[in-house]
Amino acid sequence: MAELKYEITEHIAILSESPKGWHKELNLISWNGRDPKYDIRDWAPNHEKMGKGVTLTEEELNNLKSVLLKKG
Amino acid sequence: MAELKYEITEHIAILSESPKGWHKELNLISWNGRDPKYDIRDWAPNHEKMGKGVTLTEEELNNLKSVLLKKG
Repeated sequence: MAELKYEITEHIAILSESPKGWHKELNLISWNGRDPKYDIRDWAPNHEKMGKGVTLTEEELNNLKSVLLKKG
Repeated sequence: MAELKYEITEHIAILSESPKGWHKELNLISWNGRDPKYDIRDWAPNHEKMGKGVTLTEEELNNLKSVLLKKG
């Protein structure tokens, strides 16, 4: 399998915790040495495993913020 | 392959559009007939294919909103 290198450059927030201790988190993550992107994803305790997630650019995160504000 | 049934119950917002016409969207989606959850995901034009994404509960979305507001 190909290797995926990543570094969590900023732990921003934990959005929820499951009964098994997985966290849904918002972080800034650098994938394969590239510029960090925002990332919403499930993580096992101590970040030992990652679940599915989405990466968001600064612009996408700002759009999301505007939408959530309008949504009230 | 197992079948995954889903219904987009509310199109909330398009967060971005790629050069190939894929959209990153925030929607409310019901998966396999369950109560709808918030969903951030990439979609091909006309929702013909879905990319990776995350589902968020109402509580997780509210937490995300609070975090984005504090972040400024």
